[in-house]
Amino acid sequence: MALLKIGYLGPQGTFSEEAALLYQGKVECCLCEYPTIGSVIKAVAAGEIDQGLVPLENRLEGGVGATLDCLSTSEGILIRNEVYHPIRQCLMAEDETRLGQITVVLSHPHALGQCAKFIDKHLSKAKLLPVESTAAAAKSLAGKPGYAAIAPRRAAELFNLKMLKEGIEDNKENATRFVVLSSVEQKPTGNDKTSLVLTILDRPGSLYRVLGCFARRGINLTRIESRPSREIIGDWLFFIDCEGHSDEFSETGLWQEINSEITFIKMLGSYPKGETDSVDN
Amino acid sequence: MALLKIGYLGPQGTFSEEAALLYQGKVECCLCEYPTIGSVIKAVAAGEIDQGLVPLENRLEGGVGATLDCLSTSEGILIRNEVYHPIRQCLMAEDETRLGQITVVLSHPHALGQCAKFIDKHLSKAKLLPVESTAAAAKSLAGKPGYAAIAPRRAAELFNLKMLKEGIEDNKENATRFVVLSSVEQKPTGNDKTSLVLTILDRPGSLYRVLGCFARRGINLTRIESRPSREIIGDWLFFIDCEGHSDEFSETGLWQEINSEITFIKMLGSYPKGETDSVDN
Repeated sequence: MALLKIGYLGPQGTFSEEAALLYQGKVECCLCEYPTIGSVIKAVAAGEIDQGLVPLENRLEGGVGATLDCLSTSEGILIRNEVYHPIRQCLMAEDETRLGQITVVLSHPHALGQCAKFIDKHLSKAKLLPVESTAAAAKSLAGKPGYAAIAPRRAAELFNLKMLKEGIEDNKENATRFVVLSSVEQKPTGNDKTSLVLTILDRPGSLYRVLGCFARRGINLTRIESRPSREIIGDWLFFIDCEGHSDEFSETGLWQEINSEITFIKMLGSYPKGETDSVDN
Repeated sequence: MALLKIGYLGPQGTFSEEAALLYQGKVECCLCEYPTIGSVIKAVAAGEIDQGLVPLENRLEGGVGATLDCLSTSEGILIRNEVYHPIRQCLMAEDETRLGQITVVLSHPHALGQCAKFIDKHLSKAKLLPVESTAAAAKSLAGKPGYAAIAPRRAAELFNLKMLKEGIEDNKENATRFVVLSSVEQKPTGNDKTSLVLTILDRPGSLYRVLGCFARRGINLTRIESRPSREIIGDWLFFIDCEGHSDEFSETGLWQEINSEITFIKMLGSYPKGETDSVDN
C-alpha cells in the first residue's frame, strides 16, 4: 500500500511544519510542502494528496482568514482531525551571541508582537525587521553577525543556527489549532466535535433563533466566530464548533429546524476531539 | 475658542488620513498624526486631543484587531460618530508610464490582495513587493522608473505622483468604517446606534440567552463579532452593535437582565448612525 500523502503550508521551519511533523509522529505518512493554504486545500480536493494540514485559529489572534474562506467555499473537503500546537518562540543566530550584541532582530510581525516583553527587556537596542515568515527570518541569517531571528525551534535545526533562548513568547498558553482535511467522512467515536459555517437571514433575532435550535437540544457550542462574507457584501459567515457528531444531530431534526433561519449552511466535518494540552515540546 | 484637535492614524497618504480629511470637511478642526491606533486612543484619554479617528472594521476583512483590543480595555473613551469611507485603490508612478512598462508594484499586502484581478490582467509581468503601508509604497517611488505603487488618491497628491489608473480594486463595494472617539457622551438623536463589548459566562447556551435579552426587547443587532480575549486565554469577547441609544435600553431593564449571563460588559458608546453610502470621491 502506498504511503499516505499529507500536504502542509510551507516553507519548512514554520509552526505549520512543526505541527505536520508532530502529526507524522502519530500517522505514518510522507509530507508535501505547498506555498499557500488555498493550494493545500485544492490539492486535497483534486486527490493529489490524501490529507492536508492547515492552521484554523490561534488562541490570541483568532481565526485564520485564508483557511476559513477556503473551507466555506470548497466542495467535498471535511475536517477529519484537529491538532493543537503550542506557539513557542525561540531566539536564534548564526553563532553564539550575547543578547547585548544583537543589532537586528528579524521575524514575522506576529512573532515580533508575541515577544514584545522579552524584546523590551533584553533587546531594546536592536532594530526590529519584519519579514514574511519566521522561517524566512531564520534562513536569512547566514553571513550576518549581530543578526538574530525569532522562529520555531525547528528553524534552528533546519538552518543550522545556534539557539540563544527558547520560549521567549509573552504568553505561555498561546497555541494554534490546526485541522487535518480529507474527502472522507469520519464515523462517530462518542467524543466528537462538529464544525459548520452558516449565513443567517437578515431579520432581527435570527442569530438568536439559530442558537436556540442548538440550545434546546442541549448541544454545547465550543466556539462561534463571525467573519464578513467575501461573496456578498454585508453578509456575515458564522463559524460554529459544537460538541457531538453531525449524525447524532440529524436524528434530532436540528437541520430541518435551522433551515428556516439561514440562507446558507455548510458542514465542515465531524471529528474526534483533539487534546488541547497534549503537546509539550 | 481654540480649534478642535483631532488625532488620526498616520502616516499621511493612507485611507485613514483620507477619512480624517473627510471628517475635517464637516467639523472644523486641526488634524494631528499619530504612529499607532493605541497612541491615538491614549491621546484622547489623556486629553491631549479632543477626538480621535480610528478604523474599526473593513467590509471585506472584518474587525481591526488593534482598535477592538484598545477599545475593550481603555477607560473613559466613547464612540461619538461613525464614518464610512470607500476603499478606492489607485495605481500611481513617478512619471506617466504605460502599464506594460511597469516592472515592480509596491503596496501594503492587503491592497495587493484587493487588486488581484487587475494585477493579473494588466501587471502580470511585474514583481509584487509588499511594504508596511500604502503611503510608504507611494513615498518610495522617487527616482525609480518602472516602479508603481497601489495607494489611495491622496498619496498621489501628497507625493506629487502621476495617477495611472483610479479604482483598480476588485470589489467596488469595499469600505472601511471609522469611528470618532472622545470622552464625552452623546445625547439621543432618535436615529442612533450603540456599540458594546461583553464576555459571556462559560455555560451552554449563554450567548443564546444574552441575545435573547436583546431580541425580547425588539433591539435589532446590526453586527456581532467575536474575538479571543488577550487577557484570559479561552475567553471570547463579543463586540455588538445595535440600533438605539443606551439611555433607551436602560429604561427597559436590559442591563440588569444581561448581568446574570456575562462576566464583563463595557459600553463603547451611543452615537448617530453614519450614512453608509454617502461618500463618493
